[in-house]
Amino acid sequence: MLTLHNYWSSVCSQKVRICLAEKGLAFENRHVNLFEFDHWRPEYLKMNPKAVVPALDHDGRIVVESNVILEYLEDCFPQVRLRPEDAYAKTQMRLWLFNSEEIAHENVNTCSYNPRHAARHRAKGHTSDDLKRMAAGCPNPVIRNRLLHRAAFGVTDAEENQAYEALDFLLDNMEQTLGRGPWLAGAEYSLADIAMAPFINRIEVLKRPEMVEAARRPNLAQWWQRIQARPAYQQALAVKNPDTSDPMQR
Amino acid sequence: MLTLHNYWSSVCSQKVRICLAEKGLAFENRHVNLFEFDHWRPEYLKMNPKAVVPALDHDGRIVVESNVILEYLEDCFPQVRLRPEDAYAKTQMRLWLFNSEEIAHENVNTCSYNPRHAARHRAKGHTSDDLKRMAAGCPNPVIRNRLLHRAAFGVTDAEENQAYEALDFLLDNMEQTLGRGPWLAGAEYSLADIAMAPFINRIEVLKRPEMVEAARRPNLAQWWQRIQARPAYQQALAVKNPDTSDPMQR
Repeated sequence: MLTLHNYWSSVCSQKVRICLAEKGLAFENRHVNLFEFDHWRPEYLKMNPKAVVPALDHDGRIVVESNVILEYLEDCFPQVRLRPEDAYAKTQMRLWLFNSEEIAHENVNTCSYNPRHAARHRAKGHTSDDLKRMAAGCPNPVIRNRLLHRAAFGVTDAEENQAYEALDFLLDNMEQTLGRGPWLAGAEYSLADIAMAPFINRIEVLKRPEMVEAARRPNLAQWWQRIQARPAYQQALAVKNPDTSDPMQR
Repeated sequence: MLTLHNYWSSVCSQKVRICLAEKGLAFENRHVNLFEFDHWRPEYLKMNPKAVVPALDHDGRIVVESNVILEYLEDCFPQVRLRPEDAYAKTQMRLWLFNSEEIAHENVNTCSYNPRHAARHRAKGHTSDDLKRMAAGCPNPVIRNRLLHRAAFGVTDAEENQAYEALDFLLDNMEQTLGRGPWLAGAEYSLADIAMAPFINRIEVLKRPEMVEAARRPNLAQWWQRIQARPAYQQALAVKNPDTSDPMQR
């Protein structure tokens, strides 16, 4: 029995849902409302003291961190193989799993909080003081300090520009990599493609489609078309927010 | 034939050297002088466009990112096994590989640049203007922007305090984890222990031994004693700087 504790539009949750769909695995989709801070409650922290989604419950065993969950699903359910067998191809897969966290996640998060594009907290009526009060309740100091910084300064244009500069660097690297093979790990579609796909989607949600346009990055643009055409991707991204009071409904 | 392009005191280089020593693998140790910016030169960028050490050359195949290299060495040389066979134990191992990068690396880097403890650039006679000029030559925008920030503001006490807060959070988590088994992945010593060891060493180099003292974190303190007693750890950490003009000779 698989239960995924996750949030509909969280990039790391999307990663895991794509993998589950590719493998044809049924799971219970448990909505963790990030904007009600469900992931900071004691019940959730027992599963993940780092206080982030997603968390996978597999017959009572809890697995956290999206990349770790992806490799775990591969270890347990290899019938649909999503990890190359060749040792060197595995390194390319794992490099992109890591890139998706180190560069894509960090910087897409910054861009997602720029007030021009991300009105979430404000749309909920949260003032800077509300944010500070909430931050005080956050058990993870890395996230707490980031929230406090944003409560005080927001995401500045300089910070957003640096984040896009980092993403551009990563996408240039991706363009080069995809020039050597149709997929990020080479010949085969793998967990690497699954790990990067939600970030490319988010870049489009953030209204920066020029970053993946064919004229600029043809290999990436073709890869992105192939990803979006996959039924597993469509199924995973079709999960919507059950909280209809949330103004962010796309 | 294994060649490791690395820097003697780089935490990620130490990770890989410990793994090589545990497996008894001979390798050529190629010194990349970070303070002469060898890792930003075109020859090095061909191996790793992200412009960081280490890079492993295995019969001409290049593998980068320390955690990726660790799993690669395990895939190629499993005779001395450092990855548990059980799927759940593997998740615990990979969680700590990830934690070592996401939390330990990022924050230990910040602490290492506080001028009270880290006189490197200054000892080399680099002024803030020198740093800016160097930053302009850095091919990785994430590192470049961090250098520019430090050239302008240094590492402030507030930034250093937040970094130690993050490290404390991680060490609390580590203490809890080690209470369930002698090693980070449970019953067996694994790549997880190898990945965290250099960061605990660095915390001591930064003169914060109270973070790992037995009275405060007994499980961690015992683990740290066991790690330091291992011949592979001693061998990997014994590599010193061949550049005798470098003032950081510990």
